Amino acid sequence: MSEEFLSSRRRWLELTAALGAGMAGCKRGTPAAETSPSLLGKPVSAYGERAAFETVTRGLPETRTPEAAASRTPLQDSCGIITPSSLHYERHHAGVPKIDPAQHKLLVHGMVDRPTIFTMEEIRRLPSISRIYFLECSGNGRGEWGEKTGRTASLSHGLASCSEWTGVPLSLLLAEAGVQKRAKWLIVEGADACKMQRSLPVGKAMEDALVAWGQNGEALRPEQGYPLRLLVPGWEGNISVKWLRRVMAVEEPYMVRDETSHYTDLMPDGTARMFTFMMEAKSLITFPSGGQKLTSPGFCQVTGLAWSGRGRIERVEVSTDGGGTWRNAELQEPRLPIAFTRFHFPWNWDGKEAVLQSRCTDQSGYEQPTKESLVEARGLNSEYHYNGIKAWKIQANGSVSNA
Amino acid sequence: MSEEFLSSRRRWLELTAALGAGMAGCKRGTPAAETSPSLLGKPVSAYGERAAFETVTRGLPETRTPEAAASRTPLQDSCGIITPSSLHYERHHAGVPKIDPAQHKLLVHGMVDRPTIFTMEEIRRLPSISRIYFLECSGNGRGEWGEKTGRTASLSHGLASCSEWTGVPLSLLLAEAGVQKRAKWLIVEGADACKMQRSLPVGKAMEDALVAWGQNGEALRPEQGYPLRLLVPGWEGNISVKWLRRVMAVEEPYMVRDETSHYTDLMPDGTARMFTFMMEAKSLITFPSGGQKLTSPGFCQVTGLAWSGRGRIERVEVSTDGGGTWRNAELQEPRLPIAFTRFHFPWNWDGKEAVLQSRCTDQSGYEQPTKESLVEARGLNSEYHYNGIKAWKIQANGSVSNA
Repeated sequence: MSEEFLSSRRRWLELTAALGAGMAGCKRGTPAAETSPSLLGKPVSAYGERAAFETVTRGLPETRTPEAAASRTPLQDSCGIITPSSLHYERHHAGVPKIDPAQHKLLVHGMVDRPTIFTMEEIRRLPSISRIYFLECSGNGRGEWGEKTGRTASLSHGLASCSEWTGVPLSLLLAEAGVQKRAKWLIVEGADACKMQRSLPVGKAMEDALVAWGQNGEALRPEQGYPLRLLVPGWEGNISVKWLRRVMAVEEPYMVRDETSHYTDLMPDGTARMFTFMMEAKSLITFPSGGQKLTSPGFCQVTGLAWSGRGRIERVEVSTDGGGTWRNAELQEPRLPIAFTRFHFPWNWDGKEAVLQSRCTDQSGYEQPTKESLVEARGLNSEYHYNGIKAWKIQANGSVSNA
Repeated sequence: MSEEFLSSRRRWLELTAALGAGMAGCKRGTPAAETSPSLLGKPVSAYGERAAFETVTRGLPETRTPEAAASRTPLQDSCGIITPSSLHYERHHAGVPKIDPAQHKLLVHGMVDRPTIFTMEEIRRLPSISRIYFLECSGNGRGEWGEKTGRTASLSHGLASCSEWTGVPLSLLLAEAGVQKRAKWLIVEGADACKMQRSLPVGKAMEDALVAWGQNGEALRPEQGYPLRLLVPGWEGNISVKWLRRVMAVEEPYMVRDETSHYTDLMPDGTARMFTFMMEAKSLITFPSGGQKLTSPGFCQVTGLAWSGRGRIERVEVSTDGGGTWRNAELQEPRLPIAFTRFHFPWNWDGKEAVLQSRCTDQSGYEQPTKESLVEARGLNSEYHYNGIKAWKIQANGSVSNA
């Protein structure tokens, strides 16, 4: 770390000249008077809350059915790679059920030797692991397919978040129940009012799926599946079924409601891509992004996020001239597999119109595509799995908008 | 990751036999009736809260002055490496001030060429980085010096927490202000009512100190210094001054109130160790730990945390026989420098009395000492910097207590 840090520091020190402009507003000299409080403050407390001055929230939809809707992480206000649980995006199909963990049970049955019901107490006694993973709705960025793109980073890409998840490997529960060799798929089911179901290949379940009960160091939040959810790393969010109550081993996928009515991709020739689970590499500049404003020309620290369901992010490139030239951004450590990676790119804004874009490459060698190549391959009937390069336009007055 | 994961999975599969005992309570067979709700749940929301069923809190002191006190992270209920901001330990000397970020300023002056006042807006425009670091009060574990040890993991070791911090390198602000070569120390000062001050060597400030405004993906919490704190990685928590308002460059340390009346270590010969900044390697078993209970003999996943101010944790060993034999625990990735590292150790409890202990080794080669060797080196007058091996005793009835 030290070397990386020092190398970064050298870069910043070199930037001091550029910073001159950015710092133009700083007041030189010693303050004449105290500006800080000198009254005794508040006592220690049992469970802290954020400052009253803070107003960052999830973006809420304009809808008459907020129980079957999504809220969006305010990525334009994000820092680091962890999303606060209070700001993790939501996508519910029948609202957030209130479940008493003392009553909740998970049934593992179907093609297993020993159908088993697990209580929460039993699950929490089993060996758990923690992993930092992003989660993303496959509909994230759907507006980008057409002309009606999201005005802000939250509106365009806010159905993605990143948490430290804790849970028991699903493979362990399947081994305990004695999953049979003929079983190739699992039907996973939630305890919400719509009884959300999805078909999950046994292979992926055995590889790295978690039955998660912890998020960012405490119990799952209600809107993330409290007290128990499935977590299928790198795959579209919908299959990480929340309020998990049932895992049934079967031979074939069930073609359940939400993988036929939703979560398929209609191709130009009229066929449907099904079971397009993988969330391919994507990146997004979060500052400066739509709705924000640069207050003056000069130094601007461009920053953003990149992620891939296939593993680590290996490279992020940034263009500040509308795609004419691309330069490597600095990738902040740790770069964890299937997690947000934060990138930084120092830029000296000359005060003229500019178009900023980012594109990433993951450890499989896959490079984030242009919108044009995506449309060429998949047409314009798809609603899901948009991961094209995102552009923001800087106006001469510093305001930032979708490009 | 995949290989590590598979290797772990193989271990778990091998554990299936042992798990038999642990799973003895699980109900076999298919449930006769639905136990899950089928009513429409709650809608999406702007800023989420934890489940109403959750009751985990910070431990509060019995004191008539809760403004000059500490609250403790409930480590016995922790999972993963991130501490939720709501459960991060607190140690205040004059309470939590309420500071409007629009009014807050940071003054950098003293032996600098350009004394400068930074507003929050100016600081947030500068290049920030994020790092996952633990913070620990140097008084953490002080009860362990004597006989009156903490009954739970929180009471004995709960003045330690781990967050993802975001901020501007202090080196950048010092470069901007033009810190002079004669300046060897910084006096850093908070905006709380006691105007907490500490003396910080310029060398450490230039190496990796952050002026932090973000914690776990959002603004700092009020009790962590909102809107701005110092973050001095790996050093005793008190020097990471909260509500930071002033950095003054000077030639010598100032011997301020809190580094003479507190935060020195009285040695057996009557001299005082001063400026003992480094938090040396420490580890703690969080499950099973004091106040918890094992419900039945059989499989028990021992888990805990290890950390060191000197960098990465390289090894954690666990003894289940009172220190007779030690075996390596599994270290969960990522193992980040100056951050909590989570360890796991599968154990088959035979239902008899047992004493569990952990000891860690960091990347400098330093091994966590026994209490006896600590006392031999430093006597019994010290209150700070206790990092001896911690033991928990399992009774035959499964209850766990301090040993």
